[in-house]
Amino acid sequence: MAWQPAVPVEAARRVACIGAGVIGGGWAALFLARGFDVTVWDPTDDAEQNVRRLVDLAWQPLSDLGLADGAARDRLTFAPTLEDAVADAHFVQESAPERLDLKRRVLADIDRATPPGVVIASSTSGYGVTEMETEVQKVPERMIVGHPFNPPYLIPLVEIAGGQRTAAEAVAWAGGFYRRADKFVLSLQREVPGFVGNRLQEALWREALHMLAAGEASVEEIDAAIREGPGLRWALMGPCLTFHLAGGAGGMAYMLDHFGPSLEAPWTRLTAPDLTEALRETLVTGCDGEAAGRSVEALVRQRDEQLVALLKARSGR
Amino acid sequence: MAWQPAVPVEAARRVACIGAGVIGGGWAALFLARGFDVTVWDPTDDAEQNVRRLVDLAWQPLSDLGLADGAARDRLTFAPTLEDAVADAHFVQESAPERLDLKRRVLADIDRATPPGVVIASSTSGYGVTEMETEVQKVPERMIVGHPFNPPYLIPLVEIAGGQRTAAEAVAWAGGFYRRADKFVLSLQREVPGFVGNRLQEALWREALHMLAAGEASVEEIDAAIREGPGLRWALMGPCLTFHLAGGAGGMAYMLDHFGPSLEAPWTRLTAPDLTEALRETLVTGCDGEAAGRSVEALVRQRDEQLVALLKARSGR
Repeated sequence: MAWQPAVPVEAARRVACIGAGVIGGGWAALFLARGFDVTVWDPTDDAEQNVRRLVDLAWQPLSDLGLADGAARDRLTFAPTLEDAVADAHFVQESAPERLDLKRRVLADIDRATPPGVVIASSTSGYGVTEMETEVQKVPERMIVGHPFNPPYLIPLVEIAGGQRTAAEAVAWAGGFYRRADKFVLSLQREVPGFVGNRLQEALWREALHMLAAGEASVEEIDAAIREGPGLRWALMGPCLTFHLAGGAGGMAYMLDHFGPSLEAPWTRLTAPDLTEALRETLVTGCDGEAAGRSVEALVRQRDEQLVALLKARSGR
Repeated sequence: MAWQPAVPVEAARRVACIGAGVIGGGWAALFLARGFDVTVWDPTDDAEQNVRRLVDLAWQPLSDLGLADGAARDRLTFAPTLEDAVADAHFVQESAPERLDLKRRVLADIDRATPPGVVIASSTSGYGVTEMETEVQKVPERMIVGHPFNPPYLIPLVEIAGGQRTAAEAVAWAGGFYRRADKFVLSLQREVPGFVGNRLQEALWREALHMLAAGEASVEEIDAAIREGPGLRWALMGPCLTFHLAGGAGGMAYMLDHFGPSLEAPWTRLTAPDLTEALRETLVTGCDGEAAGRSVEALVRQRDEQLVALLKARSGR
């Protein structure tokens, strides 16, 4: 029989957070702020103290953004066992340390104790569901990845994906649930190690590590180069649409024709792919789709307006 | 005799912009807004029309940020020849198309026509001064790179660097001049292809191209993954200090010990460097330096406050 959710998305009220470090505690703060009951279980001794401190820290920014009706910090409880934490949960978010053997064991434990109609999401930074759920015996159909970015209570993105045995309905239910919690949901079609956000972030991070190791730049220079440069643009548009605007009225097509040859230059240690006609077409069509009829000039106006707002916000003006 | 500037930084009043596409025109807008006289020369027929349009577009955001005393769009003029444009300039910004043969020729032409005490800066995205100034005969000592990010009138970063024949005084003068124009100056100690910002940006961009070519993600997914995820953090802190905050109270040291093993994972096509003891130390010490005595908790408070301001600014609230 196909997998069926225990409750519709709109009826979900109780969330269990298994593993409560910076990420698990951050999830707890978010779910509380969105009006859910949250039960935390973590095997470490000082978990309750750490999570309460983290939630207290997060509550001010979350309040500034606006809390859901009925949201309250005292709807946070701590369970003595994993089984207690998940027994009546409507959704489970696992945030154990990033080790494959540990993830496999914890996810199998959670699966055993959680009612079958409840989705179990892993915060893993890069493992796929298929490789993590090898020891899951009861309901592999409800296992998904729900990968956030730190801090989960403020950064909108969550990347979700199922594995080979995951039911499409479970991924869809999780998407709806995260949207109810005000997340921006990216539902991936394929299991790619590192998903999308971390693959891109990691490429930049590895080049930064290489530059540090080679003495080409300092930590401070690397941070400044991103923070005062492309980082500002990425907060608004992402890399593709940003370059669409660098090409003038010709957009991405002009940009690729102008800067394409630079791909051969020894910028970064990552070898460039061939800029084939098909890849060029994918980029141009994709940017046209995102532009949705807006001219480059209209996009420039919008970017500049937002950049000014961002620069003012950043400087406290 | 050592190179000497024609005027002190504070006395510079006139800027020549040679080459006036999106970047050159953007520089013109910035210099006008900071109260300089700007003379543009570009060999294309519609350059004047395009630059005036670009300056008009940029003027509203620049006004929102605050214009310098006396700043005015009618202090923009167009020269009939390169020689006329640079004859009485106090600073020259070259923004010709990104082709090495062209850069060599244009920079040699500019050098011939520009008074010897005037710095000539190239907007090149990645070439070094040493490889660009091979045909410069008069004063190679004043040739520098002054690499902006689009749009130059709003993104603070400018990366500056000299070549093997550049005088340290010329680099220092340019740094002072750009700071007078409200730029954030990163003065590089070495000639590295792509400098710092573009090396890092390009690593991410190449991974994005690979993912597109392999059908692992769409243009829209790539942009959303950055814009709703790490891009928001990078606008505030850059990649190193961001990770310092992901480690909880243990900071960067904890982060490296926890996620170091993930460097071996096949996230991105860029091979990771060995996380040697020396590299670990460089990162930990660098982040401690940037933190400047602020605890991770204090940095988290600051990040969250700015993230909220940024999220509100982005959504127009």
